[in-house]
Amino acid sequence: MSRAEIITSGRNPLLKETRRALSRGTLTVDGLCVAETFHLLEEALRSGLETPVVVAASSVRAVVERRVGRLKGVRLVTVPDELFQEISATEAAQGVLALVRPPLWTIDHVFRDRPLVIVLDGLQDPGNAGAIVRSAEAFGATGLIWLKGSASPWNSKTLRASAGSLFRVPFVEGMDAAMARAALSQRRATIFITVPRGGVAANQADLSRPCAFVIGGEGHGVSQEMRGAGAGLHIPTAGVESLNAGLAAGILLYEAWRQRARP
Amino acid sequence: MSRAEIITSGRNPLLKETRRALSRGTLTVDGLCVAETFHLLEEALRSGLETPVVVAASSVRAVVERRVGRLKGVRLVTVPDELFQEISATEAAQGVLALVRPPLWTIDHVFRDRPLVIVLDGLQDPGNAGAIVRSAEAFGATGLIWLKGSASPWNSKTLRASAGSLFRVPFVEGMDAAMARAALSQRRATIFITVPRGGVAANQADLSRPCAFVIGGEGHGVSQEMRGAGAGLHIPTAGVESLNAGLAAGILLYEAWRQRARP
Repeated sequence: MSRAEIITSGRNPLLKETRRALSRGTLTVDGLCVAETFHLLEEALRSGLETPVVVAASSVRAVVERRVGRLKGVRLVTVPDELFQEISATEAAQGVLALVRPPLWTIDHVFRDRPLVIVLDGLQDPGNAGAIVRSAEAFGATGLIWLKGSASPWNSKTLRASAGSLFRVPFVEGMDAAMARAALSQRRATIFITVPRGGVAANQADLSRPCAFVIGGEGHGVSQEMRGAGAGLHIPTAGVESLNAGLAAGILLYEAWRQRARP
Repeated sequence: MSRAEIITSGRNPLLKETRRALSRGTLTVDGLCVAETFHLLEEALRSGLETPVVVAASSVRAVVERRVGRLKGVRLVTVPDELFQEISATEAAQGVLALVRPPLWTIDHVFRDRPLVIVLDGLQDPGNAGAIVRSAEAFGATGLIWLKGSASPWNSKTLRASAGSLFRVPFVEGMDAAMARAALSQRRATIFITVPRGGVAANQADLSRPCAFVIGGEGHGVSQEMRGAGAGLHIPTAGVESLNAGLAAGILLYEAWRQRARP
């Protein structure tokens, strides 16, 4: 009945490469991103991205086949449940993953229209990074710059925490601080260095002009190289200094969105 | 040299009860809250809370003793590292936990001054709940109401995610929806039901008056019983509907704080 291709060996090159990419948090050698869970499969499809391979665990094959069986150019591969769990990056796998061709972005995409850019400067936690990408989409950021030494956008936790926003928000990765400073000053974006205190309060700053927020690592904050690039910006609070990096970035993006939209 | 009491058996009643409270996410039978990690020990002490017992793993005994050895009324107990890890709720334990007498709050504390109250209505994830308590302190909320069926405030993950704010922000727990509605209407707080879309946008609502935000569960949102209690309130976005509950609550609290403070 089913036309699905069946693979039962973990030594199969496709499965080996998928597992390697998931465990290392990278793209596959073919430049594909591994999107695990039904939700991310849906997000990839609704984002219009090429999805050359979908892998399903036997127990959910029928439902996966109903969804992607008729899509052109999708190779549907079924594997035993135990083998799927071995490949999976999650503890209780849903039984579906897609290999997705990520969009190719350039720095021009990141700075289009009226730039509102997030610079990730040493942020380590993929959950925080993904949450920031989600907020970036929610509040109309134009894009992100991932400096070297930050959590990878291709870590499966980043993608899951972004709830698929990573498929749609433009970003460039692997820049060093000097390159990022040059790009930002060339585009005349005001650079705000996010700090726990000092500098200007977010609701007192003009965030409606082209600007960038530099978000530092969870431990040490913004790097020395980036710290000199702009003015300090903090979220006013009732005395609490440390907010989770994902929450802080979300609030700054909301504040910029609020100032820009004035609906 | 050290005056620290040493316990080597996991069958010791104090350790058994500590472990039970941690694994179940409750207070101990003596009504004490288990605060694990150096950070939470510091937070308990700086919040001025009674800390009758501190348990240290042997390898960190010296540093713990320097910190609490001279404090009156603190019983310092040392246990072997392996035993500490067995008791711990974390995968790589730091080796210190404190039994802390939590503040006794009443509904009057929650509604003091100009009320800004969070109602947790079926929120399941203790990480989200703790993050919301953190935001509540950061943005001057007067308190929280934990409805039955929400994650416990005494779950160790809640306390850790709150970064100690749970020691300082007034809250009451265990209310049902009818009780909460009665309390809110008696105090004349405007009730806002947080929704992904519909109702009024947060930046268009007057959040400077006494008000409460009802935050629903991650899956189904606000309960039927609470939904009729107030007007819908959403965070305006560029089309993204689902934001993490912790982030959404943080942004709403920031917006209220911004409207109220106008610094």
